[in-house]
Amino acid sequence: MAEAALETVPAQIADHPAIASRARKLGLKASETLLDRSYHHAAMKGLPESWKRGRPDIVHFALMEALATPLFTSGDLDVYVHTYGNKIITVAGGLRIPKSYFRFEGVMASLFRDRTVKSDDGKKLLEMHDGTLEELVHDIEAERVVGLSSSGVQLSAEQVVAKNNTDRCVFVIGAFPKGHFSEKTTQLFSCTYSIHDSGLEAHVVIARLLYDCERLARM
Amino acid sequence: MAEAALETVPAQIADHPAIASRARKLGLKASETLLDRSYHHAAMKGLPESWKRGRPDIVHFALMEALATPLFTSGDLDVYVHTYGNKIITVAGGLRIPKSYFRFEGVMASLFRDRTVKSDDGKKLLEMHDGTLEELVHDIEAERVVGLSSSGVQLSAEQVVAKNNTDRCVFVIGAFPKGHFSEKTTQLFSCTYSIHDSGLEAHVVIARLLYDCERLARM
Repeated sequence: MAEAALETVPAQIADHPAIASRARKLGLKASETLLDRSYHHAAMKGLPESWKRGRPDIVHFALMEALATPLFTSGDLDVYVHTYGNKIITVAGGLRIPKSYFRFEGVMASLFRDRTVKSDDGKKLLEMHDGTLEELVHDIEAERVVGLSSSGVQLSAEQVVAKNNTDRCVFVIGAFPKGHFSEKTTQLFSCTYSIHDSGLEAHVVIARLLYDCERLARM
Repeated sequence: MAEAALETVPAQIADHPAIASRARKLGLKASETLLDRSYHHAAMKGLPESWKRGRPDIVHFALMEALATPLFTSGDLDVYVHTYGNKIITVAGGLRIPKSYFRFEGVMASLFRDRTVKSDDGKKLLEMHDGTLEELVHDIEAERVVGLSSSGVQLSAEQVVAKNNTDRCVFVIGAFPKGHFSEKTTQLFSCTYSIHDSGLEAHVVIARLLYDCERLARM
């Protein structure tokens, strides 16, 4: 997932009443809470590119979708999240994240604060470090970088998967509410596809792509 | 979706501190809030079949999945939710429900309280009435009722759809956290299938089944 609308409240709006109120309810410092359009709409007005930010629920759904697939649970899929603020989240194999948004919010807030989330027996479940999408793609030694976007070439998910049937292929899906990928992102793509003739939500694209990966692997 | 773990807080536990505390934060009467394991775990201990209840997030994800498909947005899919407490929710065509769980919770609480949720211009978006799954199946004149369950006959989603390619076919997916369908539910099934060799979450089953319905329709 790229340019994910997932970040903690930026310092410049941390004092806004809407922000402070939510932080109090959660018992957290304002700067530790997740920026969330549902609660912080009024506070977000002055933020740059605010239309692209503050939607942790999109990441939640998209991650939920990916992590619930047999492809992931069997260890055949690596999942990374690159965020709007250029943080990279690495997801441990076999991770289960809470379906409850309340719990997910808590896990993410901990991750931003501590840079790591561990299980009770000390196993790293999630890790975060600073990084651009370009750095991530380089670090994981991707051979092909395939962008999924409504502005891409029309092709079914089945065909997208068949055409890119290599081990080190990265499928990049946007995890933001509006607009398109930035140029910094699109310049990394080997190719860009649209798997439907109208826009689809990130979790639907992910569900379909990964299902078709599984089907191809079974043949 | 059948036997969905979606209900308002039962009267017998409405006075529990965990329940009262959450209700206060939301500014609602305790009996109007959704029973939610994430907040009410301690209060749920004495409830009958508590392991099957209090997971509105499962319904949220499952509904989100179904409503985000082109099959639904094009008007080719009707979606109903039958709840643990035998309420039937009818979903208006083209409905968009909030991805934000906070907003979804609010919409559902309103639905339980008012029995209907309308758009700003008065259009009915969601309706609720008392009813069993059997009554629903009868009311919608289903020709075939196909159950999806990990205890069903192993068949791919693609084949399940191909075998049940009729207009008035109802696919029934459980929207509860643990266990299996009750006998009252399973006795309604023409057949029962499992689309994977291990359990899958409701939203994954829904995503795959509906994707395969679309594919079959395109051929």
